[in-house]
Amino acid sequence: MINTLYLPELREMLQSQDDGALREFCTALHPARTAEFMEGLTAGETWQVIQHAESEIREEIFLFVDHEKQVEIIETQKRQPVASLIALLPPDDRVDLLHDVDPHVVEALLPLLPVDERRDVLRLLEHPEGTAGAVMTTEYAKLAESLSVSEAFDELRDQAAEMETIYYIYVVDDTDHLRGVVSARQLVSGMGQPDIRLGELMETDIAAVLVDEHQEDVALKVAKFDLLAIPVVDAQRKMLGIITHDDVIDVLREEATEDAHRIAAVDPLEQSYLTIDLFTLSWKRGMWLTILFIFAFITAIALRHYESGFEMASWLLLFIPLVISSGGNTGSQSATLVITALATKDATLRDWAKIIRRELAVGLMLGIFLAVIGTGPAYLLTDGEWASIFVVCSTLILVVVCGTVLGSTLPLMFSRLGLDPALMSSPFVAGIIDILGIVIYMKVAMTMLK
Amino acid sequence: MINTLYLPELREMLQSQDDGALREFCTALHPARTAEFMEGLTAGETWQVIQHAESEIREEIFLFVDHEKQVEIIETQKRQPVASLIALLPPDDRVDLLHDVDPHVVEALLPLLPVDERRDVLRLLEHPEGTAGAVMTTEYAKLAESLSVSEAFDELRDQAAEMETIYYIYVVDDTDHLRGVVSARQLVSGMGQPDIRLGELMETDIAAVLVDEHQEDVALKVAKFDLLAIPVVDAQRKMLGIITHDDVIDVLREEATEDAHRIAAVDPLEQSYLTIDLFTLSWKRGMWLTILFIFAFITAIALRHYESGFEMASWLLLFIPLVISSGGNTGSQSATLVITALATKDATLRDWAKIIRRELAVGLMLGIFLAVIGTGPAYLLTDGEWASIFVVCSTLILVVVCGTVLGSTLPLMFSRLGLDPALMSSPFVAGIIDILGIVIYMKVAMTMLK
Repeated sequence: MINTLYLPELREMLQSQDDGALREFCTALHPARTAEFMEGLTAGETWQVIQHAESEIREEIFLFVDHEKQVEIIETQKRQPVASLIALLPPDDRVDLLHDVDPHVVEALLPLLPVDERRDVLRLLEHPEGTAGAVMTTEYAKLAESLSVSEAFDELRDQAAEMETIYYIYVVDDTDHLRGVVSARQLVSGMGQPDIRLGELMETDIAAVLVDEHQEDVALKVAKFDLLAIPVVDAQRKMLGIITHDDVIDVLREEATEDAHRIAAVDPLEQSYLTIDLFTLSWKRGMWLTILFIFAFITAIALRHYESGFEMASWLLLFIPLVISSGGNTGSQSATLVITALATKDATLRDWAKIIRRELAVGLMLGIFLAVIGTGPAYLLTDGEWASIFVVCSTLILVVVCGTVLGSTLPLMFSRLGLDPALMSSPFVAGIIDILGIVIYMKVAMTMLK
Repeated sequence: MINTLYLPELREMLQSQDDGALREFCTALHPARTAEFMEGLTAGETWQVIQHAESEIREEIFLFVDHEKQVEIIETQKRQPVASLIALLPPDDRVDLLHDVDPHVVEALLPLLPVDERRDVLRLLEHPEGTAGAVMTTEYAKLAESLSVSEAFDELRDQAAEMETIYYIYVVDDTDHLRGVVSARQLVSGMGQPDIRLGELMETDIAAVLVDEHQEDVALKVAKFDLLAIPVVDAQRKMLGIITHDDVIDVLREEATEDAHRIAAVDPLEQSYLTIDLFTLSWKRGMWLTILFIFAFITAIALRHYESGFEMASWLLLFIPLVISSGGNTGSQSATLVITALATKDATLRDWAKIIRRELAVGLMLGIFLAVIGTGPAYLLTDGEWASIFVVCSTLILVVVCGTVLGSTLPLMFSRLGLDPALMSSPFVAGIIDILGIVIYMKVAMTMLK
């Protein structure tokens, strides 16, 4: 939803070049709110408006502007002021943004950045998207273990001025290897003994992530330990950066939406639903529909194989949707439950026997339940013979048990093979069970009705 | 997965009452890791082990123990030591836990708590689960706006000793109404001018949530403003508590799993997949399967209505799965895309016309694409007549367009009616489109093949 409350006023201020009012607009509100009110403006207009803010506030407002509009501003506006803004951005946001900017523009901007920022961008750009290295920021409070509490406080005051927030104070040795962590609270209460060294005060059993770890695993670790930030280290435990809680929240939201889309057979969009172009959207849906189409084609071939059965008892065709829906839906339930349990670490591969045992039991219960409520339709829609009702009901039990067992086994197998179990997504499982369901149905029917 | 690395040693230490070793075990590691190593122990054993820690560390380890085991410990162990532990827990975790403890036990424990903690529990227990009030904690740094920076620092040092972390310092008036916020960083850099009042230093445009707001909306607000914590206020903006980033992460993970389950037609489990009892699991799946069963039954009735068509051209039955799968899958894609876009505020109800327009366009593209690749199967499996191929292909286009349009419209309608659009979940949408698909298919066939 675009907030249009202030749009006419903003446009008027721009036209009449009412600098005072625009400056007031940029400073009065929380930067997130300022950005919200500008959502209806073009990239160029937005850029014009935030020129009226001081450079720090300009940078903060810019951070809350839509990603697409940020990219457009960087690509279209004057190089020098854009470079000054980029130099001020937090390192992690900066590199995220530059990942999506036209490489020619990035090349043109880099020489305009101060040397430290330029090196930082080049270093962070190296890390592949989706890894800890690509999400981390290089701005964090870092102190030597030999400092005393009072020295630490002085040093920290200098560092704090350059940083947005101090999450934890990381304690490192002479060569930047991570040794421990001191919380701001520990430091404040340590002020009673100003001569104690950080090395004595620090916690040494600290969670850290490797620079090439997947961002989802990082998010799980931060969630598990309830951390504000987690340090990113290389294989030698040299400290490279930190990943903060707000990036973890972004990662979790991103991955949750991706998972939801995968369950519904949509390839992750990587863009907002309303702004993605329609051809890309169709492609991300069409590739999955094609796979499911192939399954349906195989089901059709299976049906043709049993065509003589339908000649024998024409009511058999009425239950095709029921058989497919029962098997497919239970299979997709099981697959989704197992995939989410694996993703949240509620279960692991080692639990495979327990999972399959439980799914078998649930499958039996659900199958018998559906068979019981299925006797009604079976009586009404078949010739009413005992054998026909038996065909429908026993098929339901078999198909549902197949659904739960296969639906749980396939993601486990994928996980065992080292692949992402979410690839064995529920529509894929449902497609396989559809084919199987038809085969079971017709086998049972041909046997019983002969 | 249960970490069994130290289990034999732990059991041996317990048996030989090796107090020194157990104390060492409790203090050497991060409390989360200590709890991880005890996962294989019973509730009673866990309780015995943590008796060897000092009360603050005991409380920290206890916080990382499984929720189910925490409840068991509270319900089965001696009341007095349990009450002492409960008194130390953070208010939000304490009340979360007591929500799930047998009410008789809670009643017996309450009189054993210090009076402040008892009042706090009773106040927090009032708020319904899922609201901001039920997630908030009452432990936060709160200062009067009339304090100077140096006074604030002294006051804060006293408050900090009782708190785990200081997220922000909230500035309130005499009657606890929220006036503004000062970050720890602002306070540290304000030490240069120790006489400046907090009222002058504070930010006044701050995001807050109402005590009865839904936890998912709270999480979205925290994510949007990149906050460490958000204040919870009543309708008069009186400050009641704060919700911190770690609780937001928990809420987001919980809601993501619930959403994934809903897309696969499973009622949210509210428990871990491996520990939920099988009858509850079957019920949460069976209720949805029953609804989908009813749709399949209606589809069967629709098929019977057109039985004469199948007598005319028996190959028609082969494409039933294809028609159902194309419509159902595109519908479920559209429904999921719209539901996630609404949930993440990527789109709102006001975008309805744009959404439906886009879905119509995507539906046409996907439908034509499937119709083109459908000509092969149609040629192979029908009588090869031009009219038969036309029936299959034009049905595919119509069904897919129906799928995208209905799949996007139904969640929007539900949202317009003030209901959770996720209730109109994708299997539900798929069920409706299945029926419609069969009707379209047979109508087209009967018209063309006559």
